[in-house]
Amino acid sequence: MKTDASLALTMNDLGKRARKASAALAKAGPQARTKALQAMAARLRENADHILAANAVDMEAGRAKDLTPALLDRLELTAERLEGVAKGLEAVSELDDPVGDVLASWDRPNGLNISRVRGPIGVIGIIYESRPNVTADAGALCVRAANAAILRGGSESANSSAAIAVALRQGLADAGLPQDAIQMVPTTDRAAVGMMLKGLDGNLDIVVPRGGKSLVARVQDEARIPVIGHLEGLVHIYVHESADSDMAIDVVANAKMRRTGICGAAETLLIDASVASSLLPKIAAVLTDKGCVLRGDAATRDILPDIEAASEEDWSTEYLDSIISVKVVANIDEAMAHIETYGSGHTEAIIASDDTAAEQFLNEVDASIVMRNASTQFADGGEFGMGAEIGIATGRLHARGPVGAEQLTIFKYVVRGDGQTRP
Amino acid sequence: MKTDASLALTMNDLGKRARKASAALAKAGPQARTKALQAMAARLRENADHILAANAVDMEAGRAKDLTPALLDRLELTAERLEGVAKGLEAVSELDDPVGDVLASWDRPNGLNISRVRGPIGVIGIIYESRPNVTADAGALCVRAANAAILRGGSESANSSAAIAVALRQGLADAGLPQDAIQMVPTTDRAAVGMMLKGLDGNLDIVVPRGGKSLVARVQDEARIPVIGHLEGLVHIYVHESADSDMAIDVVANAKMRRTGICGAAETLLIDASVASSLLPKIAAVLTDKGCVLRGDAATRDILPDIEAASEEDWSTEYLDSIISVKVVANIDEAMAHIETYGSGHTEAIIASDDTAAEQFLNEVDASIVMRNASTQFADGGEFGMGAEIGIATGRLHARGPVGAEQLTIFKYVVRGDGQTRP
Repeated sequence: MKTDASLALTMNDLGKRARKASAALAKAGPQARTKALQAMAARLRENADHILAANAVDMEAGRAKDLTPALLDRLELTAERLEGVAKGLEAVSELDDPVGDVLASWDRPNGLNISRVRGPIGVIGIIYESRPNVTADAGALCVRAANAAILRGGSESANSSAAIAVALRQGLADAGLPQDAIQMVPTTDRAAVGMMLKGLDGNLDIVVPRGGKSLVARVQDEARIPVIGHLEGLVHIYVHESADSDMAIDVVANAKMRRTGICGAAETLLIDASVASSLLPKIAAVLTDKGCVLRGDAATRDILPDIEAASEEDWSTEYLDSIISVKVVANIDEAMAHIETYGSGHTEAIIASDDTAAEQFLNEVDASIVMRNASTQFADGGEFGMGAEIGIATGRLHARGPVGAEQLTIFKYVVRGDGQTRP
Repeated sequence: MKTDASLALTMNDLGKRARKASAALAKAGPQARTKALQAMAARLRENADHILAANAVDMEAGRAKDLTPALLDRLELTAERLEGVAKGLEAVSELDDPVGDVLASWDRPNGLNISRVRGPIGVIGIIYESRPNVTADAGALCVRAANAAILRGGSESANSSAAIAVALRQGLADAGLPQDAIQMVPTTDRAAVGMMLKGLDGNLDIVVPRGGKSLVARVQDEARIPVIGHLEGLVHIYVHESADSDMAIDVVANAKMRRTGICGAAETLLIDASVASSLLPKIAAVLTDKGCVLRGDAATRDILPDIEAASEEDWSTEYLDSIISVKVVANIDEAMAHIETYGSGHTEAIIASDDTAAEQFLNEVDASIVMRNASTQFADGGEFGMGAEIGIATGRLHARGPVGAEQLTIFKYVVRGDGQTRP
């Protein structure tokens, strides 16, 4: 482990290099960035053996450390997964380059023309855990929007991530762009994260935490620079009395059980009292059949006497597992009040045939994503057509929902005059 | 002074009331918000005597405390100034209501329709100093975008701001909106600011500091919630060799001397060497005539031998006074390099007839506002046609440049399906 002073030098040097690279990246233009992203994909394929060998080292260490099977699964790369990562880079290369987009333009009575023009944020720090593919996803999205990336991966995936970063940097060089547009923090010392959160002497503009609760909590507590992050996905799915029964059964089952470990998975089912006795048994049967455990309030247990009682804690628990809490509500107002109290501002869905009720829900529920008649598991940048995402933001500033390349930009105002002075 | 525990109760209660009011404000719709803003203007006029009497108390205390003439001028309200504030409220009432704007809408191959819809941020804290009119400007902009405001004014203007806030709250009630959409922090205890910076238990979403360097520095250091703030306006005006001479003289004089105390006032003049010997004496004559002191680098003093030398410190000083630093540069690259080193990301201007040079400057200079052939003193929300502004943001996230009602919003995604499940 390095001394703090030596680490600070290293980290601040990363920041300076990134700042310089970000200016070059912005100046290089969209074609160069597209070319770099394609070259990254090519280099990733070319380096596949090397990357898989590095991953084997991480996997062996992970097994020796008794990582859980879920963690090992996130950590593992295969030839197939690596090809998926390369395809992801190509998908990002095909996205519209957001830099230079004119968002608005207007003339003032004095003849000034004012435009709001999109440009990169600058230098983005990404702090993540064991998934090595985040190295490629996050690096590529940053480059698409002409941002330099400083990546700090988890110690478990250090070798895999480093090997992927080598390929990405080769791709940048192939396109004539500075390799320092993507840099890995060369240490797993936790003090390095603290330095990133303080902004690397003004050379880190924002930080994006991708990981579990404890990481996000640390980042939000210590950060002195803006954070785009998501806390939990305490996702509700609400079956309105006007819901089509078959649709409700299908969508609830998919929202809960397609994959239980993702942030868009439903955690609580709310259902109108007027349809609960007819519909809940059918929904419960499908969920149970798929291996899901139900926990209900008193009214739910009147209908489904065999399930466990839900405690107060259940309403605020993100299970990320085959468990769902169920509550019978009197009407849409009670459903929305429950969501306001327990929701995490991630994704909230209503199943309803009634347009008035559905639009009220979409309009009034305060979350980054609100849905009607669709599975909450669509809460995903790829499913939104963004090509990729760096995470799902639940904050209320700058970006919300899936964060793609467009959300990694900011604007500036360009004012064009012919000599105007202000009276 | 209250105890910390009692103060915390008071402040957290403000937060809870604001959160509740913000939901009602969002639900009420644009007409109700417009009506409230108009009613605020009417109530402000109705209460003019009371507000001016409260201001007289502040002014007397200010004089007794030996406030500077500049501060007393900011603090003072007159019947005319108050009418200006009322007119400002009416101008904000006429602005397009940004809530509900559909920013983008697209269909996915699976039939899902996805929209990005604008909505309020929620609860906004504004921390400001002695200008009582900020109470009205900030309160009104927040309401226009359906945000609740928690206002914390400076102690010098406490009586004036409180009297203005009463009128604003009456206006809200007149329109059937909750008065708690605009609340003043009822104490000048500095600990209250600290509590706001920690987010009032999750009920304050962002904080906007409006004031001097020390306030902004404190906010940026202590804040645990996002900040929209501006640091300095270290504004450069660059005269390119292709500049029209008369335009350069006019625009530089206006940019520096129209008002020296505002953040858009120019602080440094950069001029191409090829035109410096012919043009600098003319610019200097006009500036000197208006009472401006020049400080130059060696090349400038070769041309203007009577002026003082600029020190290294001058290049990074926001004078906010009748002083300008002057540097002769070899070309646009040297000018842009100087701006990159010393600029504060606020406003940067080029005077040039050459389109290529001008577009290069507008494209490559990294600031919230870049201008060609116009006075930097146009850096203002009103001049931009935004009706009003809550400040000029120099950050790189969410908002940049003048922050009007539109920038006090965020979006959410609305997904409409007909039963889609994710494969």
